[in-house]
Amino acid sequence: MRTKLPDARLSPRFSGYVTFGRYPRLQDVEPGSLPVDWSIYGVPYDSGVTFRPGSRFGPRAIRDASQYLKRYHLEHEIDLCETFSLADAGDTPVRPFSPVEMMETARVFAEGLGDRERTKLLALGGDHSIAYANIMATWKRRGSPKGGLAVIHFDSHLDTVPEVWGEKYSHASPFIRAIEDGAIDPNRMISIGIKGPLNSKHDLDFAREQGVTIFTHDQWRVEGDAFARAFVRRLEGREAYVSFDIDCVDPVFAPGTGTPCPGGFTSDEVLVLIRALAGLNVVGADVVEVLPDRDHADVTAMLAAHVAFEIMCLDAVRPKVEAMNEARDGR
Amino acid sequence: MRTKLPDARLSPRFSGYVTFGRYPRLQDVEPGSLPVDWSIYGVPYDSGVTFRPGSRFGPRAIRDASQYLKRYHLEHEIDLCETFSLADAGDTPVRPFSPVEMMETARVFAEGLGDRERTKLLALGGDHSIAYANIMATWKRRGSPKGGLAVIHFDSHLDTVPEVWGEKYSHASPFIRAIEDGAIDPNRMISIGIKGPLNSKHDLDFAREQGVTIFTHDQWRVEGDAFARAFVRRLEGREAYVSFDIDCVDPVFAPGTGTPCPGGFTSDEVLVLIRALAGLNVVGADVVEVLPDRDHADVTAMLAAHVAFEIMCLDAVRPKVEAMNEARDGR
Amino acid sequence: MRTKLPDARLSPRFSGYVTFGRYPRLQDVEPGSLPVDWSIYGVPYDSGVTFRPGSRFGPRAIRDASQYLKRYHLEHEIDLCETFSLADAGDTPVRPFSPVEMMETARVFAEGLGDRERTKLLALGGDHSIAYANIMATWKRRGSPKGGLAVIHFDSHLDTVPEVWGEKYSHASPFIRAIEDGAIDPNRMISIGIKGPLNSKHDLDFAREQGVTIFTHDQWRVEGDAFARAFVRRLEGREAYVSFDIDCVDPVFAPGTGTPCPGGFTSDEVLVLIRALAGLNVVGADVVEVLPDRDHADVTAMLAAHVAFEIMCLDAVRPKVEAMNEARDGR
Amino acid sequence: MRTKLPDARLSPRFSGYVTFGRYPRLQDVEPGSLPVDWSIYGVPYDSGVTFRPGSRFGPRAIRDASQYLKRYHLEHEIDLCETFSLADAGDTPVRPFSPVEMMETARVFAEGLGDRERTKLLALGGDHSIAYANIMATWKRRGSPKGGLAVIHFDSHLDTVPEVWGEKYSHASPFIRAIEDGAIDPNRMISIGIKGPLNSKHDLDFAREQGVTIFTHDQWRVEGDAFARAFVRRLEGREAYVSFDIDCVDPVFAPGTGTPCPGGFTSDEVLVLIRALAGLNVVGADVVEVLPDRDHADVTAMLAAHVAFEIMCLDAVRPKVEAMNEARDGR
Amino acid sequence: MRTKLPDARLSPRFSGYVTFGRYPRLQDVEPGSLPVDWSIYGVPYDSGVTFRPGSRFGPRAIRDASQYLKRYHLEHEIDLCETFSLADAGDTPVRPFSPVEMMETARVFAEGLGDRERTKLLALGGDHSIAYANIMATWKRRGSPKGGLAVIHFDSHLDTVPEVWGEKYSHASPFIRAIEDGAIDPNRMISIGIKGPLNSKHDLDFAREQGVTIFTHDQWRVEGDAFARAFVRRLEGREAYVSFDIDCVDPVFAPGTGTPCPGGFTSDEVLVLIRALAGLNVVGADVVEVLPDRDHADVTAMLAAHVAFEIMCLDAVRPKVEAMNEARDGR
Amino acid sequence: MRTKLPDARLSPRFSGYVTFGRYPRLQDVEPGSLPVDWSIYGVPYDSGVTFRPGSRFGPRAIRDASQYLKRYHLEHEIDLCETFSLADAGDTPVRPFSPVEMMETARVFAEGLGDRERTKLLALGGDHSIAYANIMATWKRRGSPKGGLAVIHFDSHLDTVPEVWGEKYSHASPFIRAIEDGAIDPNRMISIGIKGPLNSKHDLDFAREQGVTIFTHDQWRVEGDAFARAFVRRLEGREAYVSFDIDCVDPVFAPGTGTPCPGGFTSDEVLVLIRALAGLNVVGADVVEVLPDRDHADVTAMLAAHVAFEIMCLDAVRPKVEAMNEARDGR
Repeated sequence: MRTKLPDARLSPRFSGYVTFGRYPRLQDVEPGSLPVDWSIYGVPYDSGVTFRPGSRFGPRAIRDASQYLKRYHLEHEIDLCETFSLADAGDTPVRPFSPVEMMETARVFAEGLGDRERTKLLALGGDHSIAYANIMATWKRRGSPKGGLAVIHFDSHLDTVPEVWGEKYSHASPFIRAIEDGAIDPNRMISIGIKGPLNSKHDLDFAREQGVTIFTHDQWRVEGDAFARAFVRRLEGREAYVSFDIDCVDPVFAPGTGTPCPGGFTSDEVLVLIRALAGLNVVGADVVEVLPDRDHADVTAMLAAHVAFEIMCLDAVRPKVEAMNEARDGR
Repeated sequence: MRTKLPDARLSPRFSGYVTFGRYPRLQDVEPGSLPVDWSIYGVPYDSGVTFRPGSRFGPRAIRDASQYLKRYHLEHEIDLCETFSLADAGDTPVRPFSPVEMMETARVFAEGLGDRERTKLLALGGDHSIAYANIMATWKRRGSPKGGLAVIHFDSHLDTVPEVWGEKYSHASPFIRAIEDGAIDPNRMISIGIKGPLNSKHDLDFAREQGVTIFTHDQWRVEGDAFARAFVRRLEGREAYVSFDIDCVDPVFAPGTGTPCPGGFTSDEVLVLIRALAGLNVVGADVVEVLPDRDHADVTAMLAAHVAFEIMCLDAVRPKVEAMNEARDGR
Repeated sequence: MRTKLPDARLSPRFSGYVTFGRYPRLQDVEPGSLPVDWSIYGVPYDSGVTFRPGSRFGPRAIRDASQYLKRYHLEHEIDLCETFSLADAGDTPVRPFSPVEMMETARVFAEGLGDRERTKLLALGGDHSIAYANIMATWKRRGSPKGGLAVIHFDSHLDTVPEVWGEKYSHASPFIRAIEDGAIDPNRMISIGIKGPLNSKHDLDFAREQGVTIFTHDQWRVEGDAFARAFVRRLEGREAYVSFDIDCVDPVFAPGTGTPCPGGFTSDEVLVLIRALAGLNVVGADVVEVLPDRDHADVTAMLAAHVAFEIMCLDAVRPKVEAMNEARDGR
Repeated sequence: MRTKLPDARLSPRFSGYVTFGRYPRLQDVEPGSLPVDWSIYGVPYDSGVTFRPGSRFGPRAIRDASQYLKRYHLEHEIDLCETFSLADAGDTPVRPFSPVEMMETARVFAEGLGDRERTKLLALGGDHSIAYANIMATWKRRGSPKGGLAVIHFDSHLDTVPEVWGEKYSHASPFIRAIEDGAIDPNRMISIGIKGPLNSKHDLDFAREQGVTIFTHDQWRVEGDAFARAFVRRLEGREAYVSFDIDCVDPVFAPGTGTPCPGGFTSDEVLVLIRALAGLNVVGADVVEVLPDRDHADVTAMLAAHVAFEIMCLDAVRPKVEAMNEARDGR
Repeated sequence: MRTKLPDARLSPRFSGYVTFGRYPRLQDVEPGSLPVDWSIYGVPYDSGVTFRPGSRFGPRAIRDASQYLKRYHLEHEIDLCETFSLADAGDTPVRPFSPVEMMETARVFAEGLGDRERTKLLALGGDHSIAYANIMATWKRRGSPKGGLAVIHFDSHLDTVPEVWGEKYSHASPFIRAIEDGAIDPNRMISIGIKGPLNSKHDLDFAREQGVTIFTHDQWRVEGDAFARAFVRRLEGREAYVSFDIDCVDPVFAPGTGTPCPGGFTSDEVLVLIRALAGLNVVGADVVEVLPDRDHADVTAMLAAHVAFEIMCLDAVRPKVEAMNEARDGR
Repeated sequence: MRTKLPDARLSPRFSGYVTFGRYPRLQDVEPGSLPVDWSIYGVPYDSGVTFRPGSRFGPRAIRDASQYLKRYHLEHEIDLCETFSLADAGDTPVRPFSPVEMMETARVFAEGLGDRERTKLLALGGDHSIAYANIMATWKRRGSPKGGLAVIHFDSHLDTVPEVWGEKYSHASPFIRAIEDGAIDPNRMISIGIKGPLNSKHDLDFAREQGVTIFTHDQWRVEGDAFARAFVRRLEGREAYVSFDIDCVDPVFAPGTGTPCPGGFTSDEVLVLIRALAGLNVVGADVVEVLPDRDHADVTAMLAAHVAFEIMCLDAVRPKVEAMNEARDGR
């Protein structure tokens, strides 16, 4: 087992120190499991919100809910903990009163985690502004490739507002910032689950002009997961980042979030949709906008934990998918 | 902008006096925005219930939840606030101890709102008994046309019980009363989402005998939205009233209601179904049975606010649909 | 009416002593309604859980939620209370500290209920360990037929773990025990709704080796209810037991449960799936794992009550289905 | 044991049919325990409220919460179930749409319960309007004594409003009605826990003019329980009725109520205050205004169950108190 | 009536637009009620918190809870709405991303409200940082008196931290800022209800050195309200500001707050303590740190509304207290 | 600082791995802080309950709530983290299905923690049965002194039932077991806060016969903390164990517990009462019966964390108290 888990005969899932998925803390990983494949870390920051704050408690809630997360993926037939060495790297330092400094602080923290070549970053939010920091850290760790990373973005909102109340680093703007910085390739970015109503008919203009593929929830209803599958194929193995805003699911499936919008995915639909991305060359990810004070029975946090698991499983299943593709293509 | 909204740079959605959708109070509408196209008003009355009371707090909860309602409809490509002048007309006077007087009080209030010719009425309940008052007011404002209004009725229940515990104006009876008064044409009424179990096999008899089209949730599952679309076409532009009982959706999507029935629509399904009515000549509407004390994270109230928005958007999108139809028919 | 219900003109559904469905207590059934067709009883026991306890309060919560359960099944067109004499037989004695003795205690209680030949048993849990007791009681009352009962099992989990922390009668093991005892025929058992992630790739081995048909949630998504329908036909009328673990539905539809797993059925999907079993010769059943302290607005308990109703309706509708089948087959 | 309770070795408190205190249903009381001393019954009626409805679910919630009620009173050193034969008489018929008929229906039901001479009535509300019916039934069963019953009334509000929205039988008026009918002697009535703010300075006028003793929460803070003790002494053993509105305690101790008022008793303070009434000749009682939808962790319903217990214990301890008084007075 | 309230015969407390206490909006006050005595306004801002955010929704929640606030003070025997013209002035503009600009924005808004001479300001928070803005506005409206205002400060915490994470205008610092600006006289400031545990033994140093009177919760337990009464007398009628942080009460009485500390006042204790300040020359006030997402049954918001009422009643009762004092002193 | 805490400038209280009080994990304590003075550890076990289970999640909830626990005790004027080296030792292994083996497992784990001479044990429950294991471990670590430890026991219940349903190690029996084993001296044991109603008048017999001092909540109301103070003095410095069952406080202050009993301490009262024990030679402790699923806004868990803090502060303040006593006694 590459990831060492607690012995369930001694320490049931309702017992013991809480880390994401009961994975070891990064500092506790045994030498034989180094380097770590994925570092999961929290960004307990919500000063970037425009409506309902509280997602600073998101990382803690997701970790708690992840205690019941198991390791074998039934559909992919992959054991994540056998495949990868996983670790919980704790939380970034926090600067609640300065968005721009917070971005830098989080990025620097994330850049230094684990093995620069090998370890991939999965950030747990916090509000969506923190995606910018994790994208920048991921991009830099990959060598700041020209053209930037491909992005699979799940959300009700595009998050490409130039600025809000004069602030450039709010949760409405992570992608516009990352595009400006060259860390994202808008032509290889897809935003999935976008829903109305909108503030105005111009809300989508920037993303469209930049070449971002907008796959609204309405389109998904008609075209289904095939569109996402096709998008992955078009990426031809390019390095991709997955940004998952929990508000892409319906408010009933994610009551614990800050800017809910009725009419989204069910949990089942979105988990299946993520699985449909199999083959994606995922090199970094975030799961954001979990707001525990509005949650009940932990359904939002539990879903977030499973989404994080599914995203890492995309990475784990990739060799298998490629082998199948090669077999199919007669290579 | 026909409807003047607060300046979001000064007054975010978590700030300011609460009116439906942040629209102006009816008495505050500026002259340039008169006459008003739709008056939204509340009927905080729940003395008509047969099971769980509390929907008297429904209008207040829907208004609160509507603070995050935006104005541009992504699928219809319509800006509701640019198309229409909208206003919140407050609440009717209330007579909790006398159903029959309450109906009269609410009807008189509603009849007098805004411009008799132009302004349409959208009532927020309150229990379903209040639909009777709003239907009567709407019918009278349209000149009490013979034959009555067409009705699109969303509900788990038919609400055509002759009387309950000797009371004729409970939430089980609004449609039988309106049919008796000639305000509704049962042959142009469809009840969508009817679900079992029922009290007896005779529960549907009255509506069937009157010619009401009963489109059960089970039928919808098989036939989908096409049936509703066809019904709208058959109306050939006749004036129609939309009555929306939130208990047509599954109790998980509307926990805040008084007579829940497992196995209904998801939020997404019902929003799409309303959009499928595009082309309907809607002249009045209600959204009822929101019971905040049973809600959590405001999901029920938030859905109710969006349903009200979708219904008004049907009115806004009608010219566009007609133009498309004409183009299609080569006119 | 075979089942005598309270007069709703005197005793509304929010009034009166609470029994399941407002059916009479077993000791109060009038002679003309004897023998009883189905005895519903509770097993307020949750000492068999491996994660979150509290389902000992499940029977009470389901009874409360069942007050609003009606009697006429709209899709089957069957009045359950006209077809059957139904009764609430109370709760088994409870032995919280001894799983093995509890199984015996519950089995003995259940074996003695009503008329041994005629009365069927529907157990309300409590955790899933209690299914073992009800299966054994049912099997013995049917004359301990060789080969055992067929089983339709709804669940996220297979519940065929040999033992947990040294305990053989936990909620992880009812089916392995019943198979060992010959009360279940694994070749005529289907487990519907199984979901990952799993603890390991070997979790399904035992059931597969025994010949249990595993119909994962993922397969259901592709193949739909037809698979279940086909399974019922293959049983050719053999006596079947239905075991329903509420965690087969998504945690959002059943927040009140102990081992939730994101990505399951909606309430609507599962109710329709049960209806698709029409024709099944159901001779016993359980509905388990309702944990009220995690529920909200009673949605879990309400669904459980409706599931119990749907299962008994399968029994009620069987003659009709057989008549239709005969007519279809030209017999 | 005069009251037969379930055997706790077989049926723990989380198990079995729910009746108040696990006492037998009135129709199940064994001959040896007849006549019954106290009949506890529910009045699931809340159509008399002026603010927040929902207390129709109060009796059910109080019964559920009473499952953990024990029988031996530590301070009085009295075993209630050894002293008295107690029974749960179920709920009155309900007429939600007609306050005046409801009063008559409830009174007639209550008048007929158990043994007219011996059995005393304890009504569980429902809103406070139902106190009128129980007072009238109690008074008539005692032979309609001239001058009427003494009353110990716990409440934040006086409930002596002549009428509300034209209705005379709302929860604001039970005592004015009972005074008018001669069933209450206002000169032997005390209202304990009255709190502001009030609607106007005239709110107390009627009660003061009638001679009702108003013991505000503010006075109680200064004078303590001694005032109540003295009042009981002044009654000199006259028959007294106790009416307990749960909103006399602080909203934090009774969140589940309809017209909360900050700044009331703690649970502890009010339980001790009831005990201070020892010696009272209590001949009837009610506990009202429990609204479960606003409750959490059942704290309100649990308190209500204990208040009912304490009131009956006043009756049980009376001989002992009288004996002590006689001994003290050297008789 | 100086403050015009809705006619309760037409508009019950569960009905109508929501303003604080159902008082008119400032712009709707009738000429005969001008100038207004107290302007209640909201500051929906919580970007100054160090732990749990969400109090930006405080003003809305307090207004909702204030619908059931009555007008006659039972203990002071004062009708607040007869004594004063009261108005709800809406919310300040909000600048969530810039504490220092927010302070200026709020101060400017507050300075301009109503009649500069006559109208007093009561701010509803929002986090405690907003007290600084309201204190500055109050002080300037009173002519920026040298020495500054006296302050009665209710809180678990002193809120005199120089800066937090480099920010000077957080909710930990309003009083240090106001002292620095000369708007507060620390020698005439009392902090009531201060509780441990503290971060270090030096937490109280600054306030002590400045001469602030620290009246810990522990001292209050011993000395009671007399200490507060004496402090008021020592002020000899000087203009005083009341700042009320809801976390001074126990977390059970104010679950809806951001930095709870077990062991505080009950609601009753704190309401009585405020009344004990009678005679205070209050010229401005705030009620802050209400965080609705953590509240239940609105108990926190309801208490906050009553605290605001009690503070304004201090102003209303002052002439009476002075008259009594004069009579007592034989003047 | 003997206990190293996270740097709050980098890691606010809503950030970072969760340990009790943000203290280091036992294995992470720096050499300079060895040996540890107090080891806090969890016992996530609730199979010993007789009513409502769920306290297995108690340790996790208390740790979460303890993130906001500060270190300087305002009344004792002691900095706990400067005085002592504190550590979180994680959770014991768990055996949910065997009470007797669980006791042994927990005892063995606890006996081995930290330095046998120096380190004291504070166990977080879990149900009260776990007190037995911690008492035994404490007693053995102190050299199994003859006569046993003194005990200060806070509870609504005596927990001295011989056995329940045949089980000797349930939460009803820890003290009878520890007395039998000689680990407790019943003549030096006080049970504080005992409340009725009881199951029978014999419930107190065993404890009384053994010589346990029963200080009921009713007595406390009359005699106050002085009685507890006197008890401590009578111990004359003997080694004492503190066992704190959270249900000794009123259910409103501890909704999150399994066997609530109305009419207990407020949080403030019980914190002050613990402080009154200053001078006690505390050598071990537990805080038990926290059941998070019934909690709201974490008030129960937060109180439990503060109780644990107060108990350790008793140890920290002891030298100071002794010095004061000596000074007072003129030694």
